[in-house]
Amino acid sequence: MSKALPTVVDPHSLVGSEMERAERLIFEACASQVAAVSLAAAHVMRAGGKRLRPLVLLLCAKACGCDEADRTARLGAAVELVHTATLVHDDVVDEADRRRGQYAVNTFFGNEASVLMGDYLVCCGLRMISDEPDPRLMRSICDVIVSMCEAEVLQITFRGDLDNTFENYLKVIRNKTARLFSFTAMAGGMLAGASQPVLESLADFGMNLGLAFQIVDDILDLTGDEQALGKPIAADLREGKFTYPILHAIGESCGEQRLYLASLLGDPSVLDEDGLDSVIEIVRGSGGFQAAYECASQYAHKASAVLLALPESPAREALFTVVSQVIERRF
Amino acid sequence: MSKALPTVVDPHSLVGSEMERAERLIFEACASQVAAVSLAAAHVMRAGGKRLRPLVLLLCAKACGCDEADRTARLGAAVELVHTATLVHDDVVDEADRRRGQYAVNTFFGNEASVLMGDYLVCCGLRMISDEPDPRLMRSICDVIVSMCEAEVLQITFRGDLDNTFENYLKVIRNKTARLFSFTAMAGGMLAGASQPVLESLADFGMNLGLAFQIVDDILDLTGDEQALGKPIAADLREGKFTYPILHAIGESCGEQRLYLASLLGDPSVLDEDGLDSVIEIVRGSGGFQAAYECASQYAHKASAVLLALPESPAREALFTVVSQVIERRF
Repeated sequence: MSKALPTVVDPHSLVGSEMERAERLIFEACASQVAAVSLAAAHVMRAGGKRLRPLVLLLCAKACGCDEADRTARLGAAVELVHTATLVHDDVVDEADRRRGQYAVNTFFGNEASVLMGDYLVCCGLRMISDEPDPRLMRSICDVIVSMCEAEVLQITFRGDLDNTFENYLKVIRNKTARLFSFTAMAGGMLAGASQPVLESLADFGMNLGLAFQIVDDILDLTGDEQALGKPIAADLREGKFTYPILHAIGESCGEQRLYLASLLGDPSVLDEDGLDSVIEIVRGSGGFQAAYECASQYAHKASAVLLALPESPAREALFTVVSQVIERRF
Repeated sequence: MSKALPTVVDPHSLVGSEMERAERLIFEACASQVAAVSLAAAHVMRAGGKRLRPLVLLLCAKACGCDEADRTARLGAAVELVHTATLVHDDVVDEADRRRGQYAVNTFFGNEASVLMGDYLVCCGLRMISDEPDPRLMRSICDVIVSMCEAEVLQITFRGDLDNTFENYLKVIRNKTARLFSFTAMAGGMLAGASQPVLESLADFGMNLGLAFQIVDDILDLTGDEQALGKPIAADLREGKFTYPILHAIGESCGEQRLYLASLLGDPSVLDEDGLDSVIEIVRGSGGFQAAYECASQYAHKASAVLLALPESPAREALFTVVSQVIERRF
């Protein structure tokens, strides 16, 4: 009868049944009378996903005392649909890029079908959110998606820019990734009827978690295992997206090494394996990966610190675990 | 002091100031802190559009006695943003298609930017709709966009199918085009606080107007003037979309002519000018254009007949004019 909480709560065990429900709802929500649409949607939704966003939403709701399992699972499913839609749209490429053979994804669907499936999935998700009586949810998710588009455009404008700044990088990932996490965490609190200060803490938690998540993602783009990641290594780099580790290496380099790095990054889409190895070596030598991990860890710590505003509970403990897993993940 | 209404009310004069307001709101709504986004959005929204949907919405609202010019203009702008987003996404093509040189549109943006701009515009529109207190609006527009995606996928599955039916064709255009008109008309009534029976009449009006509109669009694809249309002639045909006039010609043809027509339509993407002329000649000879116009006119008549459920007013007269203009338009 000890009151002590276990130091590590497995997030998936704690909300296992809600996660299963969210999983079912994902497929129910994107079922269509048009067979081809159902098949394609199910294919896309089966293909991937750690379902991190539904997990965060369910845990945040539970941490705020919400026991409406169906509503939280529905909203979790909705967020996952919106998130997946953005991935599908990210896979749409231009002829020039495709010809360079950079893209392993999006081979099952063509561009045209990918656009339609992305539109379809996002609207299936939004439709679920529109069922919620709280109008702030709908307004917020629209704001978030608008920001995500803006960030993607901003990222395009920074492509290949050796003089890009950490400030710009953080602005992009805040809007591209972290704001959806922020919405997700806050939405869990809204369903629980949490107070405005708690909602703000949750939003803050989600934002910091999202920043940590994206920085780790950007490290894994260069250091991860293709098989585990399910996408080709250095896909972002080849698109000219200079993320935290690269920006660090550029900043640290000088003289001949800087010229050499600049020449490698000048047209990253045509980097061969040796060139890629050289870039990664330079980044490693500059301490770029370590610096990026430290930055991600700082955001993770902030996320955890903010969580202390919530009352102690197994769900809060599980959220701490989620934060650790986001930092420690290998895919 | 005669009570007689003018027989023809010019729609644009009647809601001229609201249309101007909607036009301003379109650009306000898609302005962004990211300069590239604002520029691209303004470019897209300036490029085109008869602004038929805002016009219908404003007139329907007025016909139901709504005088909240700002709300109607806002909702009209929102619908136009959603509509334009679908056009932008329609312009995303696959490498194979682009290589065949069929596409005149989407040369300013690449695929990647088109996807982002479409996502951006639709969410700017949805965000405006989410400001409306009536939750039915948001739910309905999500349903409509889901249907539009389904219809586009359905249309792809029917591509190049010589055995496709009028029933399938009508199902596609109902969901692809007419349902957004239906939403638009009904939304005008909702803002006016119209009763459920009136809302149903408006939805019915919009659906029939939309069907008429799309059938005329499909005729113009084959008979219209490239300059006036702003797109290459027979763009739909070349994509293997067999619309009303073509389906009529297929149904009417037999023997050698059917074989000849089938050979021409077998790979419409590579039709040369002579081949295209032959198809159009066969369609004309079969009475395909006339049959399509008659079908469009029937829907237009239904649309007008439904309008009689509304009280007599200049706005109602203007809607009759809109119906006539949709049928008589040359672009």
